[in-house]
Amino acid sequence: MGHHFGSPLVSRYWTEACNDLIARVAKRWPDKISPVCQLPQSPGVRPEEWVDELDRCVKDLGFVGCNVNPDMAGGREPVTPSMASDWWYPLWEKLVELDVPCTIHASASLNPAMHLTNSYYIGQHTSAAVEILRSRVFADFPKLKVIIPHGGGAIPYQWNRHRGMHVKEGLEPFEDAARRVYWDMAIYDRESMELLIKRVGIDHVLFATEMFGAVNAVDPQTGRNFEDIVPIFRSIDWLSETDKQKITEGNARQLFSRLP
Amino acid sequence: MGHHFGSPLVSRYWTEACNDLIARVAKRWPDKISPVCQLPQSPGVRPEEWVDELDRCVKDLGFVGCNVNPDMAGGREPVTPSMASDWWYPLWEKLVELDVPCTIHASASLNPAMHLTNSYYIGQHTSAAVEILRSRVFADFPKLKVIIPHGGGAIPYQWNRHRGMHVKEGLEPFEDAARRVYWDMAIYDRESMELLIKRVGIDHVLFATEMFGAVNAVDPQTGRNFEDIVPIFRSIDWLSETDKQKITEGNARQLFSRLP
Repeated sequence: MGHHFGSPLVSRYWTEACNDLIARVAKRWPDKISPVCQLPQSPGVRPEEWVDELDRCVKDLGFVGCNVNPDMAGGREPVTPSMASDWWYPLWEKLVELDVPCTIHASASLNPAMHLTNSYYIGQHTSAAVEILRSRVFADFPKLKVIIPHGGGAIPYQWNRHRGMHVKEGLEPFEDAARRVYWDMAIYDRESMELLIKRVGIDHVLFATEMFGAVNAVDPQTGRNFEDIVPIFRSIDWLSETDKQKITEGNARQLFSRLP
Repeated sequence: MGHHFGSPLVSRYWTEACNDLIARVAKRWPDKISPVCQLPQSPGVRPEEWVDELDRCVKDLGFVGCNVNPDMAGGREPVTPSMASDWWYPLWEKLVELDVPCTIHASASLNPAMHLTNSYYIGQHTSAAVEILRSRVFADFPKLKVIIPHGGGAIPYQWNRHRGMHVKEGLEPFEDAARRVYWDMAIYDRESMELLIKRVGIDHVLFATEMFGAVNAVDPQTGRNFEDIVPIFRSIDWLSETDKQKITEGNARQLFSRLP
């Protein structure tokens, strides 16, 4: 994505080129790849200026979802408004109109005190979820479909911090709010996967990993790549085969209504 | 703390007033309170300008530790250098010279997309730990004592993300690096406490809660305040009494060498 580079026009050209390339790949292997697009976001530029690319990708190119960058300036100025703000509403309207989900995922860290994959991403995805879940976004857009990546950053681990904040601020119980969104399982060990599933519920977890992502390395303890998490997920013995099928396929099929 | 307010001089006056007040309270109840100070940090101002307050507090007032704000501008400009940078070295030198530990804890979020206690704090403490543990700080200051608060933000939950990053970047194993610092247990449920203890080890966890902090509210599921975590900690049945004593007292007595 790299939304912090260049200008809104550079972001548009780059986004269209990337999305066109993804469309070609998906057309070549339709049984293996379902395309998801990026959007021509740019620091300080409002969603009404860039949401049209979602129309093009979904209607003309057969895309089934999109990614949304919650912080286009990479942790520097201009900061992007909270995802609780109606600044984002044109995007939510378009997602609901097209019935496609979005994943919230940041792009680049321009703050030298924040490691890209291990601090900035985790922090941004935590923040985005906190903002959306304490806002009136789902009251205004009950059919909106949002995916929080990487196991929700810090949220399942800091669970009672969020439950307590929701009680203190008079919001709906956090355990209910957390079930308004979906959480991907791109975390890389069994105990953390189990914590995620227990906290947000089997119906709200999507299997995910990366190729090749933040942890593209061999774990010296197992001899396997850290990202090779299918065996770890399979080893969770308190999940039934039906539960596992939901997490690896069923939930995604419900969420991505445009999947073939 | 509020280091983002005013100027370096305002920060100094405010810090001295706060520390003097803490010293009075500690002197009044010496069997209950051991004083820890803040430092007159200010956005963009180097540690050599404010580390003298640590001397005053420890040598003249009997303080046993201090707090360090990793991001004085509250998530805005000017961003503070990474804790891996030698920008921070005058602080580490002074801490080692006085043999007092520091807790890394941020103060105010000026980014409207980041909830203070639930996003910004968690993100800042994660980032600070990531930076320190991947740096040469402990090679240069082997006797430095650092405490990461609130269960380490996201780190124990994202454990293999950190292990994998350390392998990928050729750093020491993350599970070893994590034992160079101490982690406080101000997280508010049993499963998260257990995850923390298992990952960083019994010898590196310090019991902690807040009064009154981020989750000053009654949990409708238990009828108890979220911050009332002694019963939760006591219920962890696989810890021996010796283990529990380390976490509630022994580790802290080793770390805070100036405790009476």
